[in-house]
Amino acid sequence: MTRVYGTSQSGNCHKVRMALEALRLPYQWTEIDSTRGETRTAQFLAMNPNGKVPVLEIEPGNYLPESNAILCYLADGTPLLPGDRLARARVLQWLFFEQYSHEPYIAVARFLRKFHPDPASQRALAESKLPGGYRALEVMDRHLERNSFFVGDRYSIADIALYGYTHVADEGGFDLGRFPAVRAWLSRVQGQPGYVGMRA
Amino acid sequence: MTRVYGTSQSGNCHKVRMALEALRLPYQWTEIDSTRGETRTAQFLAMNPNGKVPVLEIEPGNYLPESNAILCYLADGTPLLPGDRLARARVLQWLFFEQYSHEPYIAVARFLRKFHPDPASQRALAESKLPGGYRALEVMDRHLERNSFFVGDRYSIADIALYGYTHVADEGGFDLGRFPAVRAWLSRVQGQPGYVGMRA
Repeated sequence: MTRVYGTSQSGNCHKVRMALEALRLPYQWTEIDSTRGETRTAQFLAMNPNGKVPVLEIEPGNYLPESNAILCYLADGTPLLPGDRLARARVLQWLFFEQYSHEPYIAVARFLRKFHPDPASQRALAESKLPGGYRALEVMDRHLERNSFFVGDRYSIADIALYGYTHVADEGGFDLGRFPAVRAWLSRVQGQPGYVGMRA
Repeated sequence: MTRVYGTSQSGNCHKVRMALEALRLPYQWTEIDSTRGETRTAQFLAMNPNGKVPVLEIEPGNYLPESNAILCYLADGTPLLPGDRLARARVLQWLFFEQYSHEPYIAVARFLRKFHPDPASQRALAESKLPGGYRALEVMDRHLERNSFFVGDRYSIADIALYGYTHVADEGGFDLGRFPAVRAWLSRVQGQPGYVGMRA
């Protein structure tokens, strides 16, 4: 059976859970606590030499890291990843946008405020992530003013990837009140079959 | 005809040129200078609201941003992107690794040292990128000790994506002398049919 090595409170890991639940695929979840060094053990580095969660165990000895690569693998051949060449490239466009222009601001600000052992010491660094995060939210909001979902007006892994950290952006100090189209889209995602929330 | 809006000295843009040349696809190149505000004009933002090069013009009015999404689009159905589901996911694994764990250190250090208007003022910031860049190079070197190319022992867009900034990592202050497997791989990439170097 598919196994996920992940951290439930991580948006990158939660994306994988969302895809598995939306696709009704059975899986087992092994909770990993990177703050206790669990992504730095020899056993973990043998699965992912880059030392990051999530990792998908396709079968024992066969491991796939990188949250968005895992989403593509799981969704391949399903309605969550379009078969058309250009539509597939547009999904990837948003997946790369998420990892380069969204996550490094929104996820990192949230990590520093919520999970760092001494958040007060990280306050200035966390605040330095706000402008970049707001730029990403503006790009999303403008797109969602004219589209129900990110690609082809249907729910796909592009939505799952961007939902991961956007729906907890307030924990990073972001005010989503300024982005009505993003908020309406968050509700649409929450209404999808198999939707699962992040565990507290 | 396909048109690329890009900056020749950008590794992200050079990847697109490498793929087009390897695939022997005809294209036109429009040089964009982001330091002169050319990615912030209304015309450019209409092509890519995220304001970054490269952008692929598939046809007038139809634009695809994000270098690695462009690589996937161009390589789809060619030997540069495997058809097998797991192999394709492994290519994506390395593409996401490149954008999250490699480019933000190696490309950014190079930018600050080589293209910033006042590099001396950026020296400390540039040096702060070295440990992350070296971690990425170590992950690559270990993989290439046992593999000729990143996926399935054949040349793919995973190699093109990682070549983009690795082959100019010295300009970011990185010493590739410590990574013999990476250097041997750079030579193998340079020996591929249709290989094209970055323009000075």
